[in-house]
Amino acid sequence: MSLMKIGVIGGGQLARMMIAPAVELGVEIRVLAEGEGMSAQLAATAVGDYKDAETVLAFAKDVDVITFDHEHVPQPVLRALVDAGVPVHPGPDALQFAQDKLVMRAKLAELGAPQPDWAAVADEADLRAFLDDHGGRAVVKTPRGGYDGKGVRVVSDPSEVADWFASWDGPLLVEELVAFTRELAQQVARRPSGEVVAYPVAETVQRDGVCAEVIAPAPKASEKLIELAARLGVQVAEGLGVTGMLAVELFETADERILVNELAMRPHNSGHWTQDGSVTSQFEQHLRAVLDLPLGATDLASEWAVMINILGGPAEGGLTERFASAMAAHPAAKIHTYGKDPRPGRKVGHVNMVGDDLDDVVYEARAAAAFFA
Amino acid sequence: MSLMKIGVIGGGQLARMMIAPAVELGVEIRVLAEGEGMSAQLAATAVGDYKDAETVLAFAKDVDVITFDHEHVPQPVLRALVDAGVPVHPGPDALQFAQDKLVMRAKLAELGAPQPDWAAVADEADLRAFLDDHGGRAVVKTPRGGYDGKGVRVVSDPSEVADWFASWDGPLLVEELVAFTRELAQQVARRPSGEVVAYPVAETVQRDGVCAEVIAPAPKASEKLIELAARLGVQVAEGLGVTGMLAVELFETADERILVNELAMRPHNSGHWTQDGSVTSQFEQHLRAVLDLPLGATDLASEWAVMINILGGPAEGGLTERFASAMAAHPAAKIHTYGKDPRPGRKVGHVNMVGDDLDDVVYEARAAAAFFA
Repeated sequence: MSLMKIGVIGGGQLARMMIAPAVELGVEIRVLAEGEGMSAQLAATAVGDYKDAETVLAFAKDVDVITFDHEHVPQPVLRALVDAGVPVHPGPDALQFAQDKLVMRAKLAELGAPQPDWAAVADEADLRAFLDDHGGRAVVKTPRGGYDGKGVRVVSDPSEVADWFASWDGPLLVEELVAFTRELAQQVARRPSGEVVAYPVAETVQRDGVCAEVIAPAPKASEKLIELAARLGVQVAEGLGVTGMLAVELFETADERILVNELAMRPHNSGHWTQDGSVTSQFEQHLRAVLDLPLGATDLASEWAVMINILGGPAEGGLTERFASAMAAHPAAKIHTYGKDPRPGRKVGHVNMVGDDLDDVVYEARAAAAFFA
Repeated sequence: MSLMKIGVIGGGQLARMMIAPAVELGVEIRVLAEGEGMSAQLAATAVGDYKDAETVLAFAKDVDVITFDHEHVPQPVLRALVDAGVPVHPGPDALQFAQDKLVMRAKLAELGAPQPDWAAVADEADLRAFLDDHGGRAVVKTPRGGYDGKGVRVVSDPSEVADWFASWDGPLLVEELVAFTRELAQQVARRPSGEVVAYPVAETVQRDGVCAEVIAPAPKASEKLIELAARLGVQVAEGLGVTGMLAVELFETADERILVNELAMRPHNSGHWTQDGSVTSQFEQHLRAVLDLPLGATDLASEWAVMINILGGPAEGGLTERFASAMAAHPAAKIHTYGKDPRPGRKVGHVNMVGDDLDDVVYEARAAAAFFA
């Protein structure tokens, strides 16, 4: 007998990491996977194309809510679910802001949320004008489909995205190149009935456009910064009508401003530290939020939590041995793996470490993760 | 791609609670369930009779190790697995001590482990002699098959177990009635290759022979008691050749002695607090131990951890509502449910709560669990 039934579209590691809290809460979890042998295989009850409304509607029968491993389900499919009376969280109105960065920028501007200067540019002339106004360099993004640094280029001349202008249907997004001092991530959860909670803001370190490390709370963050980030996260969640987890990736500037960089409406890599570092993990919180159950406490479980991503090395040999070596050397490290075949650069797991001395925690987390490099 | 494959015999809540750490570690977990819709249904890859060697051998094909949700797999079936070259942890030699309390008492005596006075009694005359030597009252147990207070009677006259003498094949176990001040539980994990770790000893509170509450570490425990209990746990694990988790239930006496009451060679109700109160939960530790992976840290995650069992109320109505009410009132409480239909007295879940103030933690854990009463 399960408490409730949740259907997750997408079989990646985010769906996988919802399994543990679902089992503990007593929530039945069903996954619509893209294929066999996906990361969330254990909970996969269907395999099919999430772009196909019929497939998704069949999967959604007899669950209490539909939620997501990713933000790529097309709007017509989302609308078909809603029309069929299926609760969908986050819903299509919110998800459009995560699906299209131009739509997001326009909405954040309307909300008055702090963000980099930006423009929709239809051609090289538009982009040249923006570059001229912003010191000759800027970030160009395809409005849809980018992730982990893909679909993002820093340019100083419009010709550097000539291929995108030639192939992309519609305008591109250009943003000022923010001279940030560091990147932060604010996790927030919101229920359909309105309750909203914020986690302590974390510092994120990116390498080659991919999240490498997260430290929570963000070191040396003033009370003011922590409050500012939490308030901004709540403002965005409420303003965009987000239900479930929201990750707001932020730039912090030298003059202590924070600017919205990216949004994700689901558990996010920048919040994996909560699995071992918070009273309520972002995965449990997402389940509670989309099921409209009361939200869990977001207090830290220790003074510090550090997350280090494991990027898959060579496909050949030795993951089990490296795993055992990491465990032997670091018995307090929490190693999470995603059941994915290792491939260079692929996220195949992460290490969480918590404790009261930041230097120790960082050192040990990195040392444990290094066994997988 | 999974790190390793583990096969669990038995589909109860202990198997269920192995699922979360298996998913996070990247270990594939397969369960041989007794029927459809068991607590560990999500990981059930087979349904069948664990007393049937053929069924169990078929299930054990292609896993790296076989372990257990319970201790009831018959010795001939365990031996058949070993003969077929399947790693079995704990193995049959160790499990016999958990399966037969007379065999356990004799072995503990051989090890010199402290335990209550005991005897094997073949008839009412034997039992009368023991009663006469021990103040006229004693505890009589059927050597096999008892749990949660079943198979245990406090007697002052042999006639009170006349039915057992008439029906039981072989002698009964009689134990002195220990004037204990409280009950404790010592959790220990041991790998096949020999590594062994101990958790801080916990206090357990039983009601009607069923575990009701656990507080870790045991309040007001002296350094000496904590060391004594850990050493005894390790001694028993090594002396009995246990692999995996071992729970040693103990009596503490007014003169600060500890005596072995019962043993369980698996994750045990008295160790559920470790899910939220320790760096490594007993379920993760059991997986690591039986897979012969390096063991995890057994440090407390907070100063105190409290576990309260949820015993199923009336079959009718309202579990979801009670769940939501408990969550709303106690956002830091960790509620674990087992996916079992509620029945009076049945263990259907538990609440864990951690923190730095024992009174607060106990109060809040009880208050959260009370929503399910």
